[in-house]
Amino acid sequence: MIDYSSFTKLSYGLYIITTEYDGEKVGYAGNTGFQVTAEPETIAVSCNKDNYTSEFIHKSKKFSLSVLQKDLDVTMVGDFGFKSGRDTDKFKHYDYKMGELEIPIVTENCVAAFECKVVNEVDCGTHILFIGEVVSAEKLSDEEPLTYAYYHEHYKMRSPKNAPTYIPPEKLEEENSKESAPENKEEKSEENVEGSEQDTEGPSDYVCIICGYTYDPEIGEPSMDIPPGAPFEDLPEDFTCPICGASKEYFKEV
Amino acid sequence: MIDYSSFTKLSYGLYIITTEYDGEKVGYAGNTGFQVTAEPETIAVSCNKDNYTSEFIHKSKKFSLSVLQKDLDVTMVGDFGFKSGRDTDKFKHYDYKMGELEIPIVTENCVAAFECKVVNEVDCGTHILFIGEVVSAEKLSDEEPLTYAYYHEHYKMRSPKNAPTYIPPEKLEEENSKESAPENKEEKSEENVEGSEQDTEGPSDYVCIICGYTYDPEIGEPSMDIPPGAPFEDLPEDFTCPICGASKEYFKEV
Repeated sequence: MIDYSSFTKLSYGLYIITTEYDGEKVGYAGNTGFQVTAEPETIAVSCNKDNYTSEFIHKSKKFSLSVLQKDLDVTMVGDFGFKSGRDTDKFKHYDYKMGELEIPIVTENCVAAFECKVVNEVDCGTHILFIGEVVSAEKLSDEEPLTYAYYHEHYKMRSPKNAPTYIPPEKLEEENSKESAPENKEEKSEENVEGSEQDTEGPSDYVCIICGYTYDPEIGEPSMDIPPGAPFEDLPEDFTCPICGASKEYFKEV
Repeated sequence: MIDYSSFTKLSYGLYIITTEYDGEKVGYAGNTGFQVTAEPETIAVSCNKDNYTSEFIHKSKKFSLSVLQKDLDVTMVGDFGFKSGRDTDKFKHYDYKMGELEIPIVTENCVAAFECKVVNEVDCGTHILFIGEVVSAEKLSDEEPLTYAYYHEHYKMRSPKNAPTYIPPEKLEEENSKESAPENKEEKSEENVEGSEQDTEGPSDYVCIICGYTYDPEIGEPSMDIPPGAPFEDLPEDFTCPICGASKEYFKEV
């Protein structure tokens, strides 16, 4: 028997993993970065084979891992976690520097960074586990690191489809329909808002079914200059999710 | 350049990993448990080759991983993390149940548990990465999971010698002597207590150099019926560290 809610009890951080090969800089946001051995220091990352970055690490045999800080502009996670380097230059808008291994190290919103030389690649089916020996390790700031739990709770974000921790919506719905878990309380009270009560509650929230971002009309979307009070229905037709770039049709009323 | 304080910025949970082979139940406390793939669900653990449990997982090809809760009796971590199954029955004092794979699943102080069949073993030098396909996943309670950061901060514990995150004392001292890090503040104020001020401050704290446990004479040690006010020097000669079992000679005045 597999209870999918159990998987949310495993703890992770959130990291920007990058490399460079043949003059092209690539990177993604991932939650699986962890030390494997202490002598020598090695760090492993689990990278989906569909990630554009995956084949680049395979070729360059090196990667950097930057530890995101707790308080950050979440669009950065959206850019690195939900967009593909195939059609976006992820480094255009964020501070980075070149490291000892001549790969980009993202410094913006990050508390520490590592550079690693790949010493082993483990084929795990959908993912490759890249194990790298640490060549450089640097503290970038004294801010608190972001945990995956805080990211989900505070920023209301889901795992992207390529993440090892991705839970398909149908499995999630199965879990959410169970009565026992008290953490469902909030969702239950949201359910109460649906239906007849809606009219008295003002404009509805809309959630992006791709990444989980919620558009709250009471707040608007400051990063896109959308003022508080704008109902989702009134947003321009070319509005896209500020996190993952999904268009309006991917939004669901909640 | 390697700044060892960077490694503390990676986030982990804390887990009890067990198996059973040839009628013998073994287990250890570890911080490296993480999901590697979502389809099928696989979980990896990094296990030191010196761990008694390591050869047992290698033989049994299965393991369980229980997620420890935030508020717990820290002696449990001491028993599983700092003692060896070679000379201790770690299951004697803690609740567990037998799982689908006929291996023990520790339930005491745990919020969730997984059983895994080993599908790959990766030799990483000092450690073996056991990658297991999840056969069962169960939520055990609604308590908050323990993070490794909270464990270090709140329970003042260090990584045991076999942990992937172990930092040798000489490297730690090197870090602590640096002036820049504000998280050293507490340690600095402790330093001020040393020396001439000692007499006016009352009996000193003593720290176990094996596991980092601190004996505070103002508190005593309730789990061993040592009342508040008992100086370390007056404790019986057969006093042992309540966490790792080290004898008095392994304690250092701080």
